[in-house]
Amino acid sequence: MSTRRLAERIRAVADFPEAGVVFRDITPLLADGAALRLAARQLVAPFAGESIAAVAGAEARGFIFASLAASQLQAGFVPLRKAGKLPRRTLAVRYDLEYGQAELEAHADAIARGERVLVVDDVLATGGTAAASCELIERLGGQVVACAFVIELPALAGRARLAGHRVHTLLRY
Amino acid sequence: MSTRRLAERIRAVADFPEAGVVFRDITPLLADGAALRLAARQLVAPFAGESIAAVAGAEARGFIFASLAASQLQAGFVPLRKAGKLPRRTLAVRYDLEYGQAELEAHADAIARGERVLVVDDVLATGGTAAASCELIERLGGQVVACAFVIELPALAGRARLAGHRVHTLLRY
Repeated sequence: MSTRRLAERIRAVADFPEAGVVFRDITPLLADGAALRLAARQLVAPFAGESIAAVAGAEARGFIFASLAASQLQAGFVPLRKAGKLPRRTLAVRYDLEYGQAELEAHADAIARGERVLVVDDVLATGGTAAASCELIERLGGQVVACAFVIELPALAGRARLAGHRVHTLLRY
Repeated sequence: MSTRRLAERIRAVADFPEAGVVFRDITPLLADGAALRLAARQLVAPFAGESIAAVAGAEARGFIFASLAASQLQAGFVPLRKAGKLPRRTLAVRYDLEYGQAELEAHADAIARGERVLVVDDVLATGGTAAASCELIERLGGQVVACAFVIELPALAGRARLAGHRVHTLLRY
């Protein structure tokens, strides 16, 4: 089974969430157990020997592949949450969306000083969420080893927003 | 390593989200890679021989253990999402929260007729989200084999809301 199997499980949906946009729907990939496990293995393959202590993923879809990647790497999982969900003292990073702003939070003690962290999400689009994830991890004292995504949309130039970080992606549209 | 290791990784936080409530914070468990994998294995242990085709989990925290459980069982993962996130035709179930209402959605073709589905979440509290998850899976044509949770809060009587379904939980408070 190869990356092609993964590509066959990504469905293009025209005009979602708005006219002119082609949405890359990962739910068929998630529904195929063998493809799901393959994607998780391929996401972490470049980092297997690199002593990753934790994998971070942003709410909500980022939780899926980040927790699978953590399990693969025998690492911990750090959820980066929307505002107000975490019960103890947090650090937050605010960032711009196309319309309005969003915020990612983690507990202030979520990451030990110098801890090596991999950032994982399903899609790298404009890179706003991923850049905010990296900033939050660094403010928490962690070291971002790399960012890994199932899908990259190069036209949206997310890689440029992640300059200075290694970026690993499986499929490009 | 045993269930006690899991219990040691659950932190009680007083007065969150409001006065008088003791919140069970799973983030220390998530951050401990060995405990994370142990919890995932224990969640699915009773169902290993039962031909589970898919594991369903509700947005957002349900995505974490449901995707790990799917990987353990070599099953697919079906995300049950908040309204408006999925790009194609959906079925939705509306349910009551303590204040107001919430909705869970899945693509109308997310589950094949008769498909055997395990519902997974981190916490069984009042059972509202879990009952809505079961209802949605059944309306999609699936068969709910059981519901599995890391934590059960028996005082909130979630099990009663899931009458007719097998319920498996690892820790009770």
